[in-house]
Amino acid sequence: QGNALGIDPRRIVWHRCVDINDRQLRNLVSGLGGTANGVPHEDSFDITVASEVMAVLCLSEDLEDLKKRLSRMIVAYTYDGKPVTCGDLKAAGAMTAILKNAIHPNLVQTLEGNPAVVHGGPFANIAHGCSSVIATRTAMHLAEYTVTEAGFGADLGAEKFLDIKCRTASLHPDAVVIVATVRALKLHGGQPKQELSTPNCEALQKGIPNLLRHAKNIRDVYHLPCVIAINLFPTDTKEECDLLKNTLAEHGFDASFTSVWADGGKGGAELARKVVALCEDPSLSAGFEQSYPLDMSVEEKIRTVTKRIYHGRDVVFTAQAKKQLMDVERLGFAKSPVCISKTPYSFSDDPSLPGAPEDFVVTVREIIIKAGAGFIVALAGSVLTMPGLPKVPAAEKIDIDANGKISGMF
Amino acid sequence: QGNALGIDPRRIVWHRCVDINDRQLRNLVSGLGGTANGVPHEDSFDITVASEVMAVLCLSEDLEDLKKRLSRMIVAYTYDGKPVTCGDLKAAGAMTAILKNAIHPNLVQTLEGNPAVVHGGPFANIAHGCSSVIATRTAMHLAEYTVTEAGFGADLGAEKFLDIKCRTASLHPDAVVIVATVRALKLHGGQPKQELSTPNCEALQKGIPNLLRHAKNIRDVYHLPCVIAINLFPTDTKEECDLLKNTLAEHGFDASFTSVWADGGKGGAELARKVVALCEDPSLSAGFEQSYPLDMSVEEKIRTVTKRIYHGRDVVFTAQAKKQLMDVERLGFAKSPVCISKTPYSFSDDPSLPGAPEDFVVTVREIIIKAGAGFIVALAGSVLTMPGLPKVPAAEKIDIDANGKISGMF
Amino acid sequence: QGNALGIDPRRIVWHRCVDINDRQLRNLVSGLGGTANGVPHEDSFDITVASEVMAVLCLSEDLEDLKKRLSRMIVAYTYDGKPVTCGDLKAAGAMTAILKNAIHPNLVQTLEGNPAVVHGGPFANIAHGCSSVIATRTAMHLAEYTVTEAGFGADLGAEKFLDIKCRTASLHPDAVVIVATVRALKLHGGQPKQELSTPNCEALQKGIPNLLRHAKNIRDVYHLPCVIAINLFPTDTKEECDLLKNTLAEHGFDASFTSVWADGGKGGAELARKVVALCEDPSLSAGFEQSYPLDMSVEEKIRTVTKRIYHGRDVVFTAQAKKQLMDVERLGFAKSPVCISKTPYSFSDDPSLPGAPEDFVVTVREIIIKAGAGFIVALAGSVLTMPGLPKVPAAEKIDIDANGKISGMF
Amino acid sequence: QGNALGIDPRRIVWHRCVDINDRQLRNLVSGLGGTANGVPHEDSFDITVASEVMAVLCLSEDLEDLKKRLSRMIVAYTYDGKPVTCGDLKAAGAMTAILKNAIHPNLVQTLEGNPAVVHGGPFANIAHGCSSVIATRTAMHLAEYTVTEAGFGADLGAEKFLDIKCRTASLHPDAVVIVATVRALKLHGGQPKQELSTPNCEALQKGIPNLLRHAKNIRDVYHLPCVIAINLFPTDTKEECDLLKNTLAEHGFDASFTSVWADGGKGGAELARKVVALCEDPSLSAGFEQSYPLDMSVEEKIRTVTKRIYHGRDVVFTAQAKKQLMDVERLGFAKSPVCISKTPYSFSDDPSLPGAPEDFVVTVREIIIKAGAGFIVALAGSVLTMPGLPKVPAAEKIDIDANGKISGMF
Repeated sequence: QGNALGIDPRRIVWHRCVDINDRQLRNLVSGLGGTANGVPHEDSFDITVASEVMAVLCLSEDLEDLKKRLSRMIVAYTYDGKPVTCGDLKAAGAMTAILKNAIHPNLVQTLEGNPAVVHGGPFANIAHGCSSVIATRTAMHLAEYTVTEAGFGADLGAEKFLDIKCRTASLHPDAVVIVATVRALKLHGGQPKQELSTPNCEALQKGIPNLLRHAKNIRDVYHLPCVIAINLFPTDTKEECDLLKNTLAEHGFDASFTSVWADGGKGGAELARKVVALCEDPSLSAGFEQSYPLDMSVEEKIRTVTKRIYHGRDVVFTAQAKKQLMDVERLGFAKSPVCISKTPYSFSDDPSLPGAPEDFVVTVREIIIKAGAGFIVALAGSVLTMPGLPKVPAAEKIDIDANGKISGMF
Repeated sequence: QGNALGIDPRRIVWHRCVDINDRQLRNLVSGLGGTANGVPHEDSFDITVASEVMAVLCLSEDLEDLKKRLSRMIVAYTYDGKPVTCGDLKAAGAMTAILKNAIHPNLVQTLEGNPAVVHGGPFANIAHGCSSVIATRTAMHLAEYTVTEAGFGADLGAEKFLDIKCRTASLHPDAVVIVATVRALKLHGGQPKQELSTPNCEALQKGIPNLLRHAKNIRDVYHLPCVIAINLFPTDTKEECDLLKNTLAEHGFDASFTSVWADGGKGGAELARKVVALCEDPSLSAGFEQSYPLDMSVEEKIRTVTKRIYHGRDVVFTAQAKKQLMDVERLGFAKSPVCISKTPYSFSDDPSLPGAPEDFVVTVREIIIKAGAGFIVALAGSVLTMPGLPKVPAAEKIDIDANGKISGMF
Repeated sequence: QGNALGIDPRRIVWHRCVDINDRQLRNLVSGLGGTANGVPHEDSFDITVASEVMAVLCLSEDLEDLKKRLSRMIVAYTYDGKPVTCGDLKAAGAMTAILKNAIHPNLVQTLEGNPAVVHGGPFANIAHGCSSVIATRTAMHLAEYTVTEAGFGADLGAEKFLDIKCRTASLHPDAVVIVATVRALKLHGGQPKQELSTPNCEALQKGIPNLLRHAKNIRDVYHLPCVIAINLFPTDTKEECDLLKNTLAEHGFDASFTSVWADGGKGGAELARKVVALCEDPSLSAGFEQSYPLDMSVEEKIRTVTKRIYHGRDVVFTAQAKKQLMDVERLGFAKSPVCISKTPYSFSDDPSLPGAPEDFVVTVREIIIKAGAGFIVALAGSVLTMPGLPKVPAAEKIDIDANGKISGMF
Repeated sequence: QGNALGIDPRRIVWHRCVDINDRQLRNLVSGLGGTANGVPHEDSFDITVASEVMAVLCLSEDLEDLKKRLSRMIVAYTYDGKPVTCGDLKAAGAMTAILKNAIHPNLVQTLEGNPAVVHGGPFANIAHGCSSVIATRTAMHLAEYTVTEAGFGADLGAEKFLDIKCRTASLHPDAVVIVATVRALKLHGGQPKQELSTPNCEALQKGIPNLLRHAKNIRDVYHLPCVIAINLFPTDTKEECDLLKNTLAEHGFDASFTSVWADGGKGGAELARKVVALCEDPSLSAGFEQSYPLDMSVEEKIRTVTKRIYHGRDVVFTAQAKKQLMDVERLGFAKSPVCISKTPYSFSDDPSLPGAPEDFVVTVREIIIKAGAGFIVALAGSVLTMPGLPKVPAAEKIDIDANGKISGMF
């Protein structure tokens, strides 16, 4: 029905989404069947949480901001290389109307009856991976202390929480809890995954630098006070626990062993007291700053995170990424924060490098402008935005009887 | 991840569905990108209501029957031509669990506060087009009189209601209301659409045979008592109304003029009294029978509807349809009722033949087995199962302000 | 690299071609892979002989006419519905240069050393199906008598030879030879294919009307003298031959039994003498005219062939064909001859109607403008422009030894 | 029609080919349209010279060897990961028969009447890039001296000629001519391309190490005598020529300035005499050996070429390439020579690194088994196997007049 905006069908960058894992929809050609049935082009579906709409919802201040952000999202490029946004398509009003209720946070309770606000799930692979700004604000209005869970890996989850969400929403955290386990550190120290229940102080010793690097990043880069929470496992030995606690203390870090999984809130009481203590003294977090300023070039911002947070030697960009960096400049998005998509298994972009590797080079192969979310995604490694099902999907076991009783869910 | 059932990717007959009008998804090739990303094949999306799941939901007795029907739905054929069902995929339990709440009818109220049960909307194009059996049963338990709206056109909506839904659910209607307008009959009599407000008894006279044929079908084929409701328009003249009423009376049909749109329930009171009167005398509907018996061949059933209800000369089948009729026999579905997909603009399959045409031949170009719904769809004409949006979609005008007030919906 | 002509990728009507049977290439989507790799659209390959280029080569007068015709060929339509030709693409010069040598006819010899000119093979399915005008002219300059073989079926091959090629090239045939066999006529009379070797005068009697209709078409529609050649088979009985010859004579047609396959040129000597006799008297063919004049509408031309040559009751056009007929008018091609694509197994468009059927209706489902060839193709039935290979292709048996000797070709 | 060999349609690695530049055919989905029209899969066309058939033709000894090699070519993989060859498809005999005449070399003559054998053109991008073994053998039988032109770049053309063709055909070259120009060396020395006509001894000085590295590779790795041919350009200054000649002499290399383009054979007489002199003393080339032995692993062979010929620090393999290296081992192709596809603009895989770079790492992103050609292709950089046409293709200017005179070819 015409192409008033001059969209190049080969440059439609917007992915459709469905709320189901369907690998068959990852890559397709749509619009077949002649003039009445659309325009042939290569198309793609993502899982709903991977849509930029989710990131936008989680970073919005209110309905008005949501509409503005939705309006800015880039859907395609014209034959002349100009971006075409949801606003250009006059879709932002209707999209916001659909999200009218979705913008309200959900209040749930824990098994012990504590209130918890659950709201939004931007796919950590290609977004900032933490709950909505509105949810955090709501909790801060309602409670004395608000704890936010950032995504997995302090180089990923904490970095994005602090550099993207806190900056965007002008949030100032009072203290940071870094969560670790003896088992994970032994894995970082080289012990095989299936032998993590075997005591091994040597592997633990070799893995501790991984945790120390995370803790030092929080203290020395972000200038925030932190406490380390060690989630206890029955197989952890006293010798291992002592080794860990002492080593951390030598480097000036306080640690608390928690048994929340086994003992509920009681198991985390000591940790809570330590967090409260850190929060009581605002001077401890007075120096909080992000790991990079916004007025660096995007390339420099990625390099800065690579050097200061990952402790890599450098970052290289593929030819495609270089071209896209130029687009970022040309289109005026150079002042955005960066959202680096990287493996959580290593400080580097190579999942087989555990511990605290050095001298590695991170390769960025693609740059994506998320104009609505307001950040620039840098892909360092492969990223899956539509999961697949296993050979025997869980659905095969789910059933329901004549009385409506469902079975096979777990 | 293997192909344990030997499915031929070229014979996957199941369409995906989404709840949005998107012509771009009518025809596509999915599963591209190599071995980890599915299997390349031609694929298609329908609008949700066009899914066989909707027809199944509407014809199910209860959760158990729903699961059985879902289990029977044909998804694909093997390389050897054997059907592969949702049951073969072990999906029926999970599908039923998802529909656990959807199976319950919705109770709403009219503007005057009367209860109305709204439940299910099988796309009349390729399904039987009326609300769920469970909804009808629920209403019959709750009220003295239950009125069911069948789809548009007594040759389509009433035919499918009586021959499919009533037969499947052993429902025995007491009376039939045929709805018509002076304007529509003038259109059938040849008056141009844009001139329907101009009085024209001649065109009306020529269009009345269309209504008479519908009424005679109800009386003489289904042996049910009927009353004709004429929805009044301000432009209808007394002369036209008298002509219509008198002509109908000459052929033995009672008509009632209704003004429900203008006057609410009051405007239909006379009609209601007539319906009640028909219902009071069960002997009037004692002879109710369907237009064809199930033990005819599918070909004969289609021919019978064509001759008895449409009053056509004959039906012809394309080579493809003939082959599919043989599949119906081979796979054991010959005893199913038929669901003919045809234009509502004519008794024939040619939308340009209004009134009461005769001597026409209906062409059936495709036969589809709906094993879950339990009927055989016969396509006589093109059928659209995924609508498209107009050049300027309504969404362009929809907006929401900072207070959450939505505008532009109507 | 731009789209200077505004071509709609969904309306590229030109098929690519290769000189190999490859069903995998019948329907495809090409131009995938992003902006550097073309434009995504539905695409198709035909076998070389089915390309319009072949029809153009065979109807061209000389290099100049060839270039003009190539230039006129329609490749696509713009978004505004205007045709885009090879000339618009500036391709006609290069295409003609490539065909510089192909335009020259090939002189070969028969097993008995007689000269034969073999040149061009426009696919009878969608073209006129006979050798090039240049070849015919060359032969006429070189020999006293020139015999041209038209395609199979006098309702198809002869019709197109006389109505398209003879008209286009101003050729005036002196006489027509209609070739038949006793076996084929028995098939038309209802004898099963595998029993054609069994004598059956009754089936022959019933099949003869087929041959008579062809002969009468030549005599009464085209006003040309004809002789019927009956190719003898060893299984033909004297009784059958007498029956055939006598019945033809009763209707005023002379027949000659030939045994060319068994006896070479000698076996056709009588036939040749009869042909010469017909040619000697120019007055016999003085009344030659085509079956329809060019100034009829395309619809009327198709109807005329249907009635005069096929002896059908009428022709109907699908909605698509009707739309395309309007394009033919709009684009100025209404004065072209028509090239009807139809089964050779029946005078009708239904291959299961042998003999001399009457009262049938031909359905035309698509109209294609062959602007270079200069005719309008009307598809009445399915038409295959890319053959497939059998399950065991002949290539499997072809081999070559170390000395270059090829085996397995036959 | 079945899938007797169990071919996985997603793992058909064979590309179709056509003899025309058509970017639209680089990536496509073929086999659409249902069960009668093939099997849907992602497909691709290459330009004819890029087909493995061309490489096979050029490495074959004779018809028998050609058939064996064609038979070994891998077309696809089964669902179980087993290769399916042309032999498995029973296609090798027919393919060889088609190439029966193509295997014979073409004898042409130069402008001065010297004989030249031209035969085969395996695309240097993904094959070994030099003429056929049969052509070389034919020339060696007919002439006292046979000169073979290898592909562009002594690290690419000479490397493949010596390591693949000479090894495969047991050819032993007597001497090597390395061709260079003052201009190209200035480009390697940093002078901008558009200023190469400006005298610049400094840039030349900086570029000479590139040439020296090539020459040392021939002398020190392959142990062959060489002479350097400098093709003179009018803009080369005496100062530049002297600088080049003297620098080469300092490193022990003899150079000859040639003016063949301007002066014909005479312009190369001195060079020819030097080559003859080198050939006269067989002891000079007695030590000839390849740069790697075949019994190394493929990975080591690639690393060896990278270190010895390119002088890079190391080679890294992508995850995909590592997996494919394992396939090479598993399928028994580990003893094959390697054919590295790399930019000719640099010794490294980065075209922007001119001169004689060091300390670079080459990335191999894909490994392809060419079982018929008998080598393993390693892709280090992007490789195009189907060229595209420019925005204004040369065909637009080609024309032919009524007399058959072609214009616009040059």
